[in-house]
Amino acid sequence: MDGPGYVDDKDRLHARLRRIEGQVQGVARMIESDRYCIDVLAQISAVTRALQGVALELLDDHLAHCVAGALGESSGTLDAKLAEASAAIARLVRS
Amino acid sequence: MDGPGYVDDKDRLHARLRRIEGQVQGVARMIESDRYCIDVLAQISAVTRALQGVALELLDDHLAHCVAGALGESSGTLDAKLAEASAAIARLVRS
Amino acid sequence: MDGPGYVDDKDRLHARLRRIEGQVQGVARMIESDRYCIDVLAQISAVTRALQGVALELLDDHLAHCVAGALGESSGTLDAKLAEASAAIARLVRS
Amino acid sequence: MDGPGYVDDKDRLHARLRRIEGQVQGVARMIESDRYCIDVLAQISAVTRALQGVALELLDDHLAHCVAGALGESSGTLDAKLAEASAAIARLVRS
Repeated sequence: MDGPGYVDDKDRLHARLRRIEGQVQGVARMIESDRYCIDVLAQISAVTRALQGVALELLDDHLAHCVAGALGESSGTLDAKLAEASAAIARLVRS
Repeated sequence: MDGPGYVDDKDRLHARLRRIEGQVQGVARMIESDRYCIDVLAQISAVTRALQGVALELLDDHLAHCVAGALGESSGTLDAKLAEASAAIARLVRS
Repeated sequence: MDGPGYVDDKDRLHARLRRIEGQVQGVARMIESDRYCIDVLAQISAVTRALQGVALELLDDHLAHCVAGALGESSGTLDAKLAEASAAIARLVRS
Repeated sequence: MDGPGYVDDKDRLHARLRRIEGQVQGVARMIESDRYCIDVLAQISAVTRALQGVALELLDDHLAHCVAGALGESSGTLDAKLAEASAAIARLVRS
């Protein structure tokens, strides 16, 4: 009914992902034009950081949503949600 | 003259970047259709790993090229190239 | 009064940190005995992963505690706690 | 015969590892005295960064050593060394 945690940030997230898509195309163009490896690597590090920024924003929204929803839920549901959030954080930290 | 270290891998790198571009568009579509945060985060972790894969391939090519070139270069040039490669590796490790 | 989120896991966390301390001493011994760089690096990667494991456990405990505490707190307090948790997650993801 | 790549940096590396060992003990003490999760996490991020710093220094020394050694080695030996260095970099980037 009330959408995912990021529902109020969709436009901003969408704009950030469009920019990231453009950055990935930029990396492809650098390679097509034989740009120096080290410069291509610097650009890839920038894209990675931009993606992490989107992930961290989604996670913030999700945690705020979880906590706000905690009042009305059973402890089993809450535990399952926390386990899920933990697994997502672990994937981010290790990727 | 003889191009960057990745010159023989350009087609494969290009194909990988096209796939990553498609993955970023996929993340944008997930957000448009209100997909669950945790699923979007899992997809972003996959894109991040794919980008790191491209970076590691570029770096391999670059190091092989550097070492191959070491025979004909002054030690000052070599030191500068190694410092540059180290900085690129540090950026990758920390991003 | 009721201690930090990890209060029930203190013994286990303590044991993990002792093991990590031993691993760091092991790295120092490898260097003293001129062990091969690549083997030392593999061991450092293992220590880093072990430290991340401790961080992820602390974070799980903290989030569970936050959510459990959400019932009795003002929304201002909750927002501040979430912002704090987000900043900690961002530091982990980026380190 | 001539030791690993880091042979001239052993004292400094040793001092850095002693400091890291002290930082890990500090984290254990924070947990014993029930310090706030977020503060413990900040300290763990600092230890992780310090460990990465040691790893990056070892890697620099190793690459410099590899390149310097490239003159006298067969291409098969060189390829094997580069593959090994790449695998070590990949482990660092992904840990």
